[in-house]
Amino acid sequence: MNLLEKIDAAATARIALLPNGVGAFGIPIEEVYSATEARIGDRRVLLLGTNNYLGLTFAPECIQAAHEAIDKEGTGTTGSRMANGSYFGHRALEREFADFYQCSSSIVFTTGYQANLGTISGLVGPGDTVLIDGDSHASIYDGCILSGADIIRFKHNDAADMEKRLRRLGNRVETTLIIAEGIYSMLGDQAPLAEIVRLKNQYGCILLLDEAHSLGVLGETGQGLVEKTGLLKEVDFITGTFSKSLCSIGGFCVSNHPQLEQLRYISHPYIFTASPSPATIASTRAALELLRNGSHLRKQLWNNCTQLYSTLKEVGYELGPDPGPVIAAVVDTPQQALLLWQRLLEHNIYVNLILPPAAPEGKSLVRCSVNAAHTRDQIQYVGDTFTKLFKELN
Amino acid sequence: MNLLEKIDAAATARIALLPNGVGAFGIPIEEVYSATEARIGDRRVLLLGTNNYLGLTFAPECIQAAHEAIDKEGTGTTGSRMANGSYFGHRALEREFADFYQCSSSIVFTTGYQANLGTISGLVGPGDTVLIDGDSHASIYDGCILSGADIIRFKHNDAADMEKRLRRLGNRVETTLIIAEGIYSMLGDQAPLAEIVRLKNQYGCILLLDEAHSLGVLGETGQGLVEKTGLLKEVDFITGTFSKSLCSIGGFCVSNHPQLEQLRYISHPYIFTASPSPATIASTRAALELLRNGSHLRKQLWNNCTQLYSTLKEVGYELGPDPGPVIAAVVDTPQQALLLWQRLLEHNIYVNLILPPAAPEGKSLVRCSVNAAHTRDQIQYVGDTFTKLFKELN
Repeated sequence: MNLLEKIDAAATARIALLPNGVGAFGIPIEEVYSATEARIGDRRVLLLGTNNYLGLTFAPECIQAAHEAIDKEGTGTTGSRMANGSYFGHRALEREFADFYQCSSSIVFTTGYQANLGTISGLVGPGDTVLIDGDSHASIYDGCILSGADIIRFKHNDAADMEKRLRRLGNRVETTLIIAEGIYSMLGDQAPLAEIVRLKNQYGCILLLDEAHSLGVLGETGQGLVEKTGLLKEVDFITGTFSKSLCSIGGFCVSNHPQLEQLRYISHPYIFTASPSPATIASTRAALELLRNGSHLRKQLWNNCTQLYSTLKEVGYELGPDPGPVIAAVVDTPQQALLLWQRLLEHNIYVNLILPPAAPEGKSLVRCSVNAAHTRDQIQYVGDTFTKLFKELN
Repeated sequence: MNLLEKIDAAATARIALLPNGVGAFGIPIEEVYSATEARIGDRRVLLLGTNNYLGLTFAPECIQAAHEAIDKEGTGTTGSRMANGSYFGHRALEREFADFYQCSSSIVFTTGYQANLGTISGLVGPGDTVLIDGDSHASIYDGCILSGADIIRFKHNDAADMEKRLRRLGNRVETTLIIAEGIYSMLGDQAPLAEIVRLKNQYGCILLLDEAHSLGVLGETGQGLVEKTGLLKEVDFITGTFSKSLCSIGGFCVSNHPQLEQLRYISHPYIFTASPSPATIASTRAALELLRNGSHLRKQLWNNCTQLYSTLKEVGYELGPDPGPVIAAVVDTPQQALLLWQRLLEHNIYVNLILPPAAPEGKSLVRCSVNAAHTRDQIQYVGDTFTKLFKELN
């Protein structure tokens, strides 16, 4: 088979798995009305499948900051951070992230995906080892591949399995990077950070924590799992994204290790890409300020999370172990997941459909993402609909 | 050495190479005045080191489109293209790129870096082969690593060397992807596309051409090298970026092969990243329209390119073989390059400093990027300054 025939063969296999499933991916959003509502086809739908956790996509402060930056600095920088792409705002945002995490260094990347690629491939290389959770996000996995380091997976959130693998590494622990996530994107569960920190200290490794889904969501000021657990000072490198609670696009890494600054000279995903646009930087700076001072948003968010999680749990859906903004109903087959997803859309509720191999352990997921802007009535309606469909479909 | 000590050692080695050179990278841009002027420290400088080839960073049509999108759709989509991130504009921009290149399919990526990573790692995998130019951009190289395919390099722009390697591949040519660039970013020279196309047809490979630096620059309507050479229909996949002539951030791939659409289901750098922000999509759509109808901008650009290239050539600078918007003075040592770069900045001219290993063949570069918004007087001043410094420094 030539290259194109191989792609055809893979497509045929995928379509055979779920003949009517293609329409569920990349669904066209025709108009966006607010942080919680949009139009899909002729339907006005409730958005329960975005990463807009604090509901800030239309925050006036962020919109205003973006407008001003476009007028003042244009639509793009047309250069990388290493060339002409380090404007005042890029450097200010880095200082603000460092300040937020009480860290000495901070680097801003152009996407969250590139933040993980750039940090991981900057920290480790061939001959080194990465010890990663089995449910790691694709950006972590791709960063590990790009780095050329040996990749070892431990069982998802299983510290005992992690320790077994650390023991086997022997002297190689010295050049081992452990990677975990604040909240995992599939089931919404949190890493056992205290145990991971204990092991990384015992074995003398370096720890990277990706707070993509937990930034703005966990901790009094929204730092993430590091704040909720009081372990900020024990984590060596923290990465995160701007495209979830901060409602723009980009990513960051913060650290107290001065070595982070060196990544600017060696990390391809930092060097060989244009820097974020002025509008993106400006709205992210405004959103970070709202996030830090957003205890009231986190309160609303968690009220919504708890309400929906309890409803679904009581009805009988199989869910992840921790309540939180990511609430995934686990079902056995892609067909069941697609049917539930379709029926929710018929009830004007948009959620995410996740099929193998993206979902863990060969399962399929119908995943909700709750945000702070959802009203109590909206969450009630979603809960009621899930309840009704559970009876219909089981 | 542990991981952090390794980074320290690399930093020490780099600093020893050029003790005063660090300040030349990531230079702070304090204020941007226009497509050609900015403030660095207390200096008002001429920007001769951006990729703003058509000078559209402040084009009123693009600025206006970005403003409208922010008000209407918010600061970000907070979702990937596969989830909730396919707005009307994202799909419209894809149709517009397909139309521009008279192709059946088009995919928009969140960065140009990810366009190459996503296209390459989507097209080839372990067991396949990529045959790439020795001077390929880092995003091409990283895409090849991510794919797991075997990487073979041919000598830069050397079709004879390319053929030698194709012959050696035997039956493996069937699963070989050849990758070249319209204009190479280091010396500004163009790929020998007619010869590459002849060979790819003779051996039955697939050809990907990256038009990042040639989009908007070459060809009557700005398609790039494919248009200048009349070989559009002979190239299988074309990638490019929004962060150069289109003045925003993002990337694309176009093709007449229906298999391109399948990349939406398999390519990590497409799937696992948030989609471009509404403002980015809107300004890119407006810029693409200006680019297609921008013969007058290309005329201005090429007048500027020819003027500066001839001046530098006549004075005695060693340059790349082709005149164009990327004009690089090749010097033997990093010290010479840094000195020239610093003296230019003292004359209020900002250009790019490129040191080994980024520059080819162990050389160092002082690289100018010319754009359509530069006035004849600005280019004259830059030429005069280079002339004066050639006499001073040689």
